[in-house]
Amino acid sequence: MTTEVPRSFHMTPDEFRRQGAEVIEWIARYMEQVEDYPVLSSVEPGEVREQLPATPPEHPEPFEAVMADLDRVILPGVTHWQSPNFFAYFPANTSGPSILGDLLSSGLGVQGLLWATRPACTELETLVLDWVVDLLGLPERFLSTGDGGGVIQDSASSATLCAVLAARHRAAPDNDLAGLVAYTSEQAHSSVEKDVRVAGLPASSLRTIEVDERFALRPEALAAAVEADLAAGLRPFFVCATVGTTSSTAIDPVPAIADVCERHGLWLHVDAAMSGSAAVVPELRFVNDGLDRADSYCFDPHKWLFTNFDCDCFYVADRSALIGALSVLPEYLRNAASEQGAVIDYRDWHVPLGRRFRALKLWMVIRHYGAEGLRHHIRRHVALTQELVAWIEADDRFELAAPAPLNLVCFRHVGGDEVNQRLLDELNASGALHLTHTRLDDRLTLRLSIGQTHTERRHVEAAWDRIRTLA
Amino acid sequence: MTTEVPRSFHMTPDEFRRQGAEVIEWIARYMEQVEDYPVLSSVEPGEVREQLPATPPEHPEPFEAVMADLDRVILPGVTHWQSPNFFAYFPANTSGPSILGDLLSSGLGVQGLLWATRPACTELETLVLDWVVDLLGLPERFLSTGDGGGVIQDSASSATLCAVLAARHRAAPDNDLAGLVAYTSEQAHSSVEKDVRVAGLPASSLRTIEVDERFALRPEALAAAVEADLAAGLRPFFVCATVGTTSSTAIDPVPAIADVCERHGLWLHVDAAMSGSAAVVPELRFVNDGLDRADSYCFDPHKWLFTNFDCDCFYVADRSALIGALSVLPEYLRNAASEQGAVIDYRDWHVPLGRRFRALKLWMVIRHYGAEGLRHHIRRHVALTQELVAWIEADDRFELAAPAPLNLVCFRHVGGDEVNQRLLDELNASGALHLTHTRLDDRLTLRLSIGQTHTERRHVEAAWDRIRTLA
Repeated sequence: MTTEVPRSFHMTPDEFRRQGAEVIEWIARYMEQVEDYPVLSSVEPGEVREQLPATPPEHPEPFEAVMADLDRVILPGVTHWQSPNFFAYFPANTSGPSILGDLLSSGLGVQGLLWATRPACTELETLVLDWVVDLLGLPERFLSTGDGGGVIQDSASSATLCAVLAARHRAAPDNDLAGLVAYTSEQAHSSVEKDVRVAGLPASSLRTIEVDERFALRPEALAAAVEADLAAGLRPFFVCATVGTTSSTAIDPVPAIADVCERHGLWLHVDAAMSGSAAVVPELRFVNDGLDRADSYCFDPHKWLFTNFDCDCFYVADRSALIGALSVLPEYLRNAASEQGAVIDYRDWHVPLGRRFRALKLWMVIRHYGAEGLRHHIRRHVALTQELVAWIEADDRFELAAPAPLNLVCFRHVGGDEVNQRLLDELNASGALHLTHTRLDDRLTLRLSIGQTHTERRHVEAAWDRIRTLA
Repeated sequence: MTTEVPRSFHMTPDEFRRQGAEVIEWIARYMEQVEDYPVLSSVEPGEVREQLPATPPEHPEPFEAVMADLDRVILPGVTHWQSPNFFAYFPANTSGPSILGDLLSSGLGVQGLLWATRPACTELETLVLDWVVDLLGLPERFLSTGDGGGVIQDSASSATLCAVLAARHRAAPDNDLAGLVAYTSEQAHSSVEKDVRVAGLPASSLRTIEVDERFALRPEALAAAVEADLAAGLRPFFVCATVGTTSSTAIDPVPAIADVCERHGLWLHVDAAMSGSAAVVPELRFVNDGLDRADSYCFDPHKWLFTNFDCDCFYVADRSALIGALSVLPEYLRNAASEQGAVIDYRDWHVPLGRRFRALKLWMVIRHYGAEGLRHHIRRHVALTQELVAWIEADDRFELAAPAPLNLVCFRHVGGDEVNQRLLDELNASGALHLTHTRLDDRLTLRLSIGQTHTERRHVEAAWDRIRTLA
């Protein structure tokens, strides 16, 4: 036993003050230095693990030893998502107020399964999710003050699962799933297929509808597929439209899709995981088109709204379908507030029972930035992206692979797949930036996503310089 | 705009240092004072919300204003799960090293969906989950170095869902669910029913098997139910055994249940959400009996192992069934490390795609306490519980309602439901402690769960004094 650990083994409040100060300082320095690290970790499989003991320690170790391993072993194995030179996948931008909001949640250590177990957690979540309706100009049907409401989920994958479950409950309350059919575009996120399978439907019950030249779902193809399935005696029940596909930010025509859904009584879910945040900017509210006719909606503040994972906002227009799908009530959870129907019990709004106080971080982010600050940054990211688009268009060696309406550019070297693969590999190996790829029109395509908290014009310029130089 | 918020709207690293110090101090003071707060919040529905603005702020607000609202509005609406006088539901004990581990995870802000997106996150998780096998004396089949392995899930509800999905995949890889039947005891956690429904099975396909006088599943009743279903042409596929039921810590006879499962080829999942932690103490390893024949297992360090939510450890003996149930591979997630099969991609081990670096906090807890420290505290909680059991047995006005093998006592006043309800209400209204209830043998029963980080003998004594005085 060391001097750092008292006989009780617990970390005392004073020790927590001391070590907490060290951790805060470590993170502040990380924020200051993250730009200088190679963005993509270059460790080999197994390299991190083999530097750590194979078995747990018998005796307490000083906190300093753990922090030393963090620097020595963990940090070299980290791909720096918070680097301003991280342009891969999607942004996962975080911020000081979000980190501190999450810290307060950990410090309070409360469980929000029921209103009664933590009233403030439930009510703050309901309030903040209503704030977000205002902030993004979402339809009023998603407000908790009517028949709908919002809830924080861990991810868009889980939110979309809940949408599938609510739709399935409406179509087949007894879980007789025979003949149920779901629809999404062939460019939709892989989680739609995963969620449909989780919900017990065979993979063949998901129709992936073809897209147009902009990679957006063709509503006439959707209508034809639904009608063919109806004619075959099947039971169409669910459509997932995407506003901002993962691959290329394609925006499905939600109003035309809503026409099909209304005609045939299908549940319409809109997945705007990354792109939804754009709606804090009034001139970008085209991402909300048709949303007033959707049954459910989700977007991720943990992608592009300065809030660290996990924080997906999931909304339903009719909360009774969601609760009907997910509610079970054992004796040990019965309580007066719930039985009177006066409160929301979020355990009935998702799969897990327990839940952290996740609303705190989103509340803190919104209060720290204000609507004004959030607008400023989202607008700036989109403007930077549009500058990059212009640079790509002005260079003969490159071409845009898809429209870039928001903060993701899909482009490629005209030299073909092999050239693009080499370009991608060399860019990533340089450590100076991190990009990922997709395939569009069956051609290898580079994706450059702009949305990290501290990405400035100079980072995008440097990235483009390097891409051009390597080309 | 205030002086606290620079023109960029972002919180600078220096501002983060300053506010971070405030938050650390706030939490340290909370740790020091939590014992003095009324344990159960007494706010009325709507009271928290109405003290906050109905719409989001247009302009940035100073961090101090948010912290002031935390004290003024949020704290009175919080039920203090970290109070040493919290004896309700289950412990959700946290600790300094866990809070700081989670803080580091937020500060790094990395996404662990694939090994390639954050090698250290994946490898540390695999290592720590292997450490836990050692720490708890779990069977070797759950080690990642063989065919099995562990993963951190958000909750036992989600872990059990994954067990159902893996079992369903093994029994019906094409999701032809007709006739599938699952089994658990009538005392099992409500999440089993929820998970079976999520997985697309009708509620009627879950058999809740009767329990014995100790509230443990009767294996002969299970065998009879399975045989009857087979005779009726149905397809039994999944059994969930519980080690430590939520209601009364009943321990299902896992070895006898495993006999039934082996005989008929059923997937055996063992849910030890709270009680699993007991196995850090060698003399309490009866909780692992029969586990070497289970297909999957879960327990929650976020309940009784000083690790804050969310941290459920979920193990499978054959990871291929789990991955088969949950894997989908879109182009934008393809990468060399995954294709070579050299690494684990945890996105295929649960429903969400994105994931936090949750292994950090568990790693820090184990290193801070060492096996020695964890044993010390779990042993102490069980010993305190056994003292309380003796006090209850010595008082004629009270009776035990169930065996108390670990850290939960179910008891009641002999005066009947009405007396017990009044007792419960008055105890909770006192603010001095918080208990919850269950029903056993159709009689209202008080539950007293001992496992908060700072619960000492004096808190249990004071609780019992108050109970006796009120009685």
